[in-house]
Order: sequence, then structure tokens, then C-alpha cells
Amino acid sequence: MEIPLIKVAEIVTGECIGDENFVITGINSLDQAGPSEISFFSDRRYGESLKNTKAGALLVSEINDEFRGPQVVTPHVELAYSKIAVIFAMPPTRYPGISADAFIGENCRLGEDVSIFPMVYVGEDSEIDDGTTLFPGVVIDEGVKIGKRSILYPNVTVLRDCVIGNDVIVHAGATIGSDGFGFVRNGSSSVKVPQTGIVQIDDHVEIGANNCIDRAAFGKTWIKEGVKTDNLVQIAHNVVIGEHSIIVALAGISGSSQLGRGVVIGGQVGVIDHMEIGDGAMVGSQSGVAKSIPAGGVVSGTPAIDHRLWLRSTVMIARLPQFSDRLRRLEKQVRELESRMTDDGGRTTDDG
Amino acid sequence: MEIPLIKVAEIVTGECIGDENFVITGINSLDQAGPSEISFFSDRRYGESLKNTKAGALLVSEINDEFRGPQVVTPHVELAYSKIAVIFAMPPTRYPGISADAFIGENCRLGEDVSIFPMVYVGEDSEIDDGTTLFPGVVIDEGVKIGKRSILYPNVTVLRDCVIGNDVIVHAGATIGSDGFGFVRNGSSSVKVPQTGIVQIDDHVEIGANNCIDRAAFGKTWIKEGVKTDNLVQIAHNVVIGEHSIIVALAGISGSSQLGRGVVIGGQVGVIDHMEIGDGAMVGSQSGVAKSIPAGGVVSGTPAIDHRLWLRSTVMIARLPQFSDRLRRLEKQVRELESRMTDDGGRTTDDG
Amino acid sequence: MEIPLIKVAEIVTGECIGDENFVITGINSLDQAGPSEISFFSDRRYGESLKNTKAGALLVSEINDEFRGPQVVTPHVELAYSKIAVIFAMPPTRYPGISADAFIGENCRLGEDVSIFPMVYVGEDSEIDDGTTLFPGVVIDEGVKIGKRSILYPNVTVLRDCVIGNDVIVHAGATIGSDGFGFVRNGSSSVKVPQTGIVQIDDHVEIGANNCIDRAAFGKTWIKEGVKTDNLVQIAHNVVIGEHSIIVALAGISGSSQLGRGVVIGGQVGVIDHMEIGDGAMVGSQSGVAKSIPAGGVVSGTPAIDHRLWLRSTVMIARLPQFSDRLRRLEKQVRELESRMTDDGGRTTDDG
Repeated sequence: MEIPLIKVAEIVTGECIGDENFVITGINSLDQAGPSEISFFSDRRYGESLKNTKAGALLVSEINDEFRGPQVVTPHVELAYSKIAVIFAMPPTRYPGISADAFIGENCRLGEDVSIFPMVYVGEDSEIDDGTTLFPGVVIDEGVKIGKRSILYPNVTVLRDCVIGNDVIVHAGATIGSDGFGFVRNGSSSVKVPQTGIVQIDDHVEIGANNCIDRAAFGKTWIKEGVKTDNLVQIAHNVVIGEHSIIVALAGISGSSQLGRGVVIGGQVGVIDHMEIGDGAMVGSQSGVAKSIPAGGVVSGTPAIDHRLWLRSTVMIARLPQFSDRLRRLEKQVRELESRMTDDGGRTTDDG
Repeated sequence: MEIPLIKVAEIVTGECIGDENFVITGINSLDQAGPSEISFFSDRRYGESLKNTKAGALLVSEINDEFRGPQVVTPHVELAYSKIAVIFAMPPTRYPGISADAFIGENCRLGEDVSIFPMVYVGEDSEIDDGTTLFPGVVIDEGVKIGKRSILYPNVTVLRDCVIGNDVIVHAGATIGSDGFGFVRNGSSSVKVPQTGIVQIDDHVEIGANNCIDRAAFGKTWIKEGVKTDNLVQIAHNVVIGEHSIIVALAGISGSSQLGRGVVIGGQVGVIDHMEIGDGAMVGSQSGVAKSIPAGGVVSGTPAIDHRLWLRSTVMIARLPQFSDRLRRLEKQVRELESRMTDDGGRTTDDG
Repeated sequence: MEIPLIKVAEIVTGECIGDENFVITGINSLDQAGPSEISFFSDRRYGESLKNTKAGALLVSEINDEFRGPQVVTPHVELAYSKIAVIFAMPPTRYPGISADAFIGENCRLGEDVSIFPMVYVGEDSEIDDGTTLFPGVVIDEGVKIGKRSILYPNVTVLRDCVIGNDVIVHAGATIGSDGFGFVRNGSSSVKVPQTGIVQIDDHVEIGANNCIDRAAFGKTWIKEGVKTDNLVQIAHNVVIGEHSIIVALAGISGSSQLGRGVVIGGQVGVIDHMEIGDGAMVGSQSGVAKSIPAGGVVSGTPAIDHRLWLRSTVMIARLPQFSDRLRRLEKQVRELESRMTDDGGRTTDDG
């Protein structure tokens, strides 16, 4: 594909500096771009790469004198990069139509331009809407609904009656709709509590590889529009994840917790059950959330506290051996002062 | 299905208050129950839901005046709920018989009423006993034994010679019997130690989605009766998990550690190798167990210490910046006292 | 199989003490070995097992008087054990040839002695080299290259254009080459950044069950020769893992971080993005690496600090309640000293 720079500027609503007829054939990092490719510069850490780049053109947030070739100036370089990259990126592999080697149950409704690879199982009464792709090894249980243009990568499992929206991506090995972890103690043993709800995943959600999203005990576990989860994330029964929230790898959200819009959960974070995390709150990596967080809150640590306080506190943890020494020294000094004082007092009395 | 309340009372060994011929058609949460459904109330946090419920009947631990309809009084409401819910819950999907599109190796023994979906692979010399269900994508290697009425959900893998008991549930994507992580350093590289043991899973165990349970180096990794593991749990080679223990999501138990009966391991806990954790011990979420725990012990933190001490200690971590200020102030005060004392001492001497 | 002890000594380059014609038929732990099996002793913790063993022969690092049978003395007992065990270990199951029930795309190149089970999918333009085994449920996307003698266990997914070397083992359920977690904020929503790179896995690597290794944004995520990862490990886009490094279960390495040779990452460790971890560095379990680590560095804690300092500091965390009491006592003592001093001063003045 070939795109003139003026077209690039149009796509990213930027301004073209230099030869606007310059034709690019791809986009790449500063280090790897060739003379017919465009690259991008937005992070000073890559100054050295900028000096040595062989890129033919550059996306920048302000005109850069270090770079001799034509430039497209646009306020949000990362977004601009993403818009251009998607044009050049190879679209995901698709199977042409529905493979005769897939297993499609009775009473299924398959939309137009659905792509179903061999080695796919779709249980009865399920619906797969227009333009959706199911890779090999995908298993869809009965009564599942999947919207338009979604992609389920290999070995994804979606269990009974779950609902997935439009333009959703589920990466390989993820499990949607396994039973929530609900047991009641009966003497020394555990009695399973039937998990009768579902998982609902709204439009434009992206679920990472090997995620586990459990079905609700009642009602639904709900992943709202635009949520993105990284790999190996655990979402328990009846959790609600608000619109456009982000959950980084290996984090776990316990039962019935509710996250607002635009929440950011760092990697390996744990959230206990029944928490409420307000809109736009941020939880630092490896934190353990054991108290609800108001909208806009920023917390870290286990148990999680205000992020800035945590920063100051953890610096101090490394100084605890010093603290201990200082305490011991103070105690010695105070004992000496007390004994001198008593001696003085004694002497004074003697004197008197 | 329709059940009169007197029958409900019988099942949960409770007492019926009000119209014992009232017929229920389902069980649901206070918020979602309709007029022909029964709900349950055991947690005061849901008092508001109780006021507004449309449920026709109620499971309670003592007669509740807020609720006008008939009630079933039973000491353990959660257990009662679970017993009624299982009656109304839809049983898991089953395939009628053994699909012609499953691959069954030679010398396999398949019991009566086995349900094997298409896209299942069973290696030679394996045994699948009466009433067990294998969902699509399940792969059973050679020489595996699976007991009666067990359910293996989609894309579960069970490797060679592993043994699974009766009434076991393995959720989607779990791996049973992969090689233990055993290597010996030889100069700068690692030499694989053959993992020649198996995994044995006893009756009534439930294994969460995307769990990994490694085969033993020798002998067996052993998950005893009634154990329940949440999603994304890692159990290393030669670990023994005692009867009815519970392991919450994203926890990892390292090689040869032994857990007693009724142990509770919180989410994201790590246990190092060769630990012994006594009967009924509890480990708080995100803790790191680096010392064995006696029976009944309750620990938290990394490294894990007594839970109450940990609670008090972590509160103090947030106060460390204060501590630091107080230390500095004390040091200043003591310096001043010392210098005044010396001045006084000097004066006293002068006076004398 | 039967091997005389003199042959064992030769294989492990050790010295035979006692009957060198003694024939062994297997290798086992001290507790489980029978009279025709060899066992090994290198860890004093197993002294009791040594006394009671029924093993016929023993691998030891120095002659052991407690054991009456013939012994093979060799400096590195674990390595010797591993070399003998691999002789007796059953080789992994193989399918004879390429199953007619596997799906092989167009333009694939399959080497000699390739073993492809039923229920395997290989996308077009892929290459599977000599002696490699693909278990049921393995899904290979288009354009993938896999070297010689590698083993991909059940339900492994390898996505487009990824490259896997020779003698690689990928355990069940692992996902190689899913999209990196790259999004750009656009107002309140997240725009996906196309992930156009690949994953490259070099020779003699072993990848644990249910691992996730993401493809690069550009270029490659690179797992170098001899790396071993435990189960449920997350490796993000553009990460480089140096030769012979070891990553224990449930650890996560964030985007673009670079690990040197022979690095050891403990279980449940998190490494933030763009870190550099030098050759031979070690990170203790559950640590959070938020600063680069020089070669040979040993760190622990969140955020990670020098390991010895961390050991001393964490001991002190448990003493914080004591510290608090001591601080309070000191403050009281100092107040009293100050007031006595003032009184004394007053008295002194009065006296004068």
C-alpha cells in the first residue's frame, strides 16, 4: 500500500511540513523504519534513535529540527501512529465461510460473512452475528449470543447462555462463563452453590489470553463497553467492570466488586469481594484493595492506601533498620539523661 | 418445576411459617425474585433489598417481621439456599452418548452413560467411568483414569497416567499433569529432570478454569477429597492438598509443600517449596508463606506472620512518615536536653 | 531396561564403589526405590529416608557409610540423577505420522518423522521441521515456523508468523503470539495499537502450561536459548529474556523489559515496563521490580530493594507495633525530662 503524506496528515488531522507528496509504504519504529516508511517521535528517551533513524518521514507533536525529512505535526502522536498503523497492519487471518469440519448445533443462527474455522464447536440455540470470526479450537456452549465483527481466537471457551457484543476480541485460551467460586460450608466439607447467571460482554471489549471470567451466581457478571483486559486476568462472579476500564495482567477481581468507568487496575492487583471502585480510580501494581475507593482515588500497597502516602511509606521500609538503630540510641541517651538527672538531683539534694 | 413450601422445609430440615401449600417455581436473589419465587435473607447488608423484594416466600434463620409472605426458618440459610437452588438449576449440557466425531484410542474402557462430545481426544488405555462428561476440546492422554459422574469442561488437558476420581469437576482450560518445573544447573544451562510421577485427584474435587497442576517428579501430586480451587491456580510437583481445603484465584503452591485438611489459601498467595501447612490454617490474600504454619494458624503478609500482628503492623506502615518525623523531633529534643544538662552541669559545677 | 553400575558411573563420570556389575532396572526416590533400583542422596534433610531405603544402589557426592550397597560417587548428584532418570523415563507420547484427522493448510512444509495427532490445525505457509510433535488441540496459525524435535502439548496456540526453534517444549494451554496489550487513550476510550511484530523462541526453551507470550508491537518478543518458564507466566510485547534465564510461576514481565543471561525471576514477581535486568540477577518471589537491576543484583520486596536490606527490613515490619510503643514511651520520658529540667532550672534559680 502507498499513501502520500498529505493523506496521512488528513487521517490524523495534522499539518504537513515539507514534501506533502512524499509517499509512504509503511510505518515502523525509529530503529527499524526504512526510507519509504514513516516513523514517530514523542518520547525524549528515544532521542538517540531519532538521530540515527533511516525513516523517510516522521509523525511529531512539534516540528523537530533534528529530522531532515518531511514531518506531520499532530498533537497526539501515539493516537496518530495507531491510526496509520492500522491501515498497514495485516488483518487477522479469516476462514472463508463456515468450515464443513466445524460442528454447528441445531437451531443456531449464523449471520452473513461469518468465518468459522475447522475444529470449532457451536452448541445448539446459539447465535453468531455478521462478520464474526471463530478460530480453531473455539468451543461455544448452548444458547450463546455473539454480536457482529467479533473475533474469538483459538481455544477460547464460552459457556452456556453468555452474551458477547459487537467488535469484541477474545484472545486465545480465555474462558468466559465458567462457574463462579461459590461454596457453602457444611461441617468440614463444601457444598457447591449453583451458579445460574451469565457473563455479558459489551461492545468493543478486548479480553486477554487465558483470562477467566466467571458466570454470576444470579443475574450477570458484566464487562461494559470498551473495557480492555490484559492476559491471565481473573474476574469473579457478579463483578461489574465499568466502561473503558483497563485491567493489567495477572490481576484478580473478587466476587460482586463493582468498578466504575475508566478505572485502571495495575498488574497483579487483587481486589477483595464487594468493593466499590469509583470512576477513574487507579490502583498501583501488586496492590491489595480491601476498602472501597472513591472516584478519582489513586491507591497502592497491601492493604492499599493513598498512593503518595504509600510511596513515602515504602521508602521508609528500607530505612527501618536505621530507625531501629536510632530508637535504640535514643533509648540509651534518655536512660543516661534520666540517670544524670537523678544523680544531679541527688547531688543537689546532697548539696542542699 | 413446582415445589410446595412444605417440601422446601423438608429438604432444608426447616420449619414452615405461613402457607405451607404455597408453590414456588424458582429461587432468586431478593432484587430479582418474582412473586412465585423463593428468596433468602441472611446478611443485614441486604436489608434494603428485603424491604423492596417481590419474592413470594423467604428462607430465613429466624422469623422476619419485615416480610409478609410465608417463610421457611432454618439455621443455615446459605446451605438451605444451595440445596434448593440445585433443584432448579439447569444441569450442565450433555452430549447424548459418544460422538462419532470424538477420537477414542485403542484399549479404552468407557463406562455406561458416558457423554463424549465431538472434538474430544482420548488416548489409548484410558478409562472413563459411568456418567462422566467430556466437553469439546478435552484432550486425555494415554493411560488416564477418570471416575464416575465427573465433568471435564472444554479445552481441559489431562496428561499421561493421571487419575481423577468420582464427582470431580474440572473447569475449562485447566491443565492436569504437565511436567513439574524441575531443572538442574549444569554450568550456565539447565538440564531437565524427568518428571515421572502423576497427578491424583480424589472424589468431589472442583478444579478452577485455567488451573495448572503439575505431575510429580516421583510418585504423585495429590489433591485430596473435596478440595476446591478457584481459577488460575498453580500447584507444583509433589504438592499434597489436604481434604476440603480451599485455594482462591491466582495462588501458587510450590513443589513438595503439604497442606493439611480444611486449609484456606487466599487469592494471589504464594507458598514456597517444602512448606507444611497444618489442618485448618488460613493464609490471607497476597501473602507469601516462607515458614511452615501449625494447625489452626492464621497468617498474612510477605513473609507471612501472625495475622493480627500483620494487621497492626500494616496500619503502622502508613504511619512511617509520621514515625520518621517523631524520631527526628525526639533526636532534636534529646540533643537539646543533653546540651542544657551539660550547661546546667557546668553551671552547677561553677555554682559549686 | 537393565544397566550395570559400571555403565551408570560412566554416564555420570563418577566412580563406582562396591559391585560394579550390579544391575539396576530403574531410578527412584529413597522412599520408593526397590532393591533393583538406584536412588540418590545429596540433601541431609533426607537422612531418615536414607536409613530406611530399600534401594539397591546409590548416587552420592561422597562415600556414605550408612548405606551398605554399591555406590556411585559423583560431584554433582542432582545432575547425575537427571542423566540416569532420562534413560529410564518413558518418552512423551507420539502419534505415528500425520493424522488424517489433522487440518494442514496449503503450502505447509512438514519435515521427516513429524508427529501430528488428530485435532491439530496448522495454517497455511507454516513449517514444522523434523521430529516435532503436535498434540491434539494444538492450533498453529499461518506462516509459523517450528524447528526440529520440538513438542507442543495439547491446546497450545501459536499465532501468525511466530518462530519456534529446535528442542523446544511448550506445555499445554500456552498461548504464543497473542496481541500485545497496546492501547492509546482517545478521550475516555482506548484505541487499539496494531501489534505487527512476532514472538521468537530459540532452541532448548521450555514454556510452562497456560503461559501467555505476546507478540511485539514492532519487531519481536524474544525468548532466547535455554530459557525455562514455569506455569501461568505472562511475558508482554517486545520483552527480551536472555539465555538460560528462569521465570517461576505466575510472574509477569511488562512491555519492552530486557532480562540478561541467567536471570532468575521468582514466583509472582512483577517487572514493570522498560526495565533492564542484568546478567545473573535474582528477584525474590512476589517482588515488584520498578527500577533496573545491575548484573548480579539480588533484590526483593515491592518496590524491590537489595535482598539483604529487605530481609532486615521485613523482620522490622513485624516489630512496628513495638516501635510505636517505644516511640510513645520515649516521647513521654523526654517530656518528663524536659519538665523536670525546667523545674530543676526553676529550683536552681530559686536556690540562687
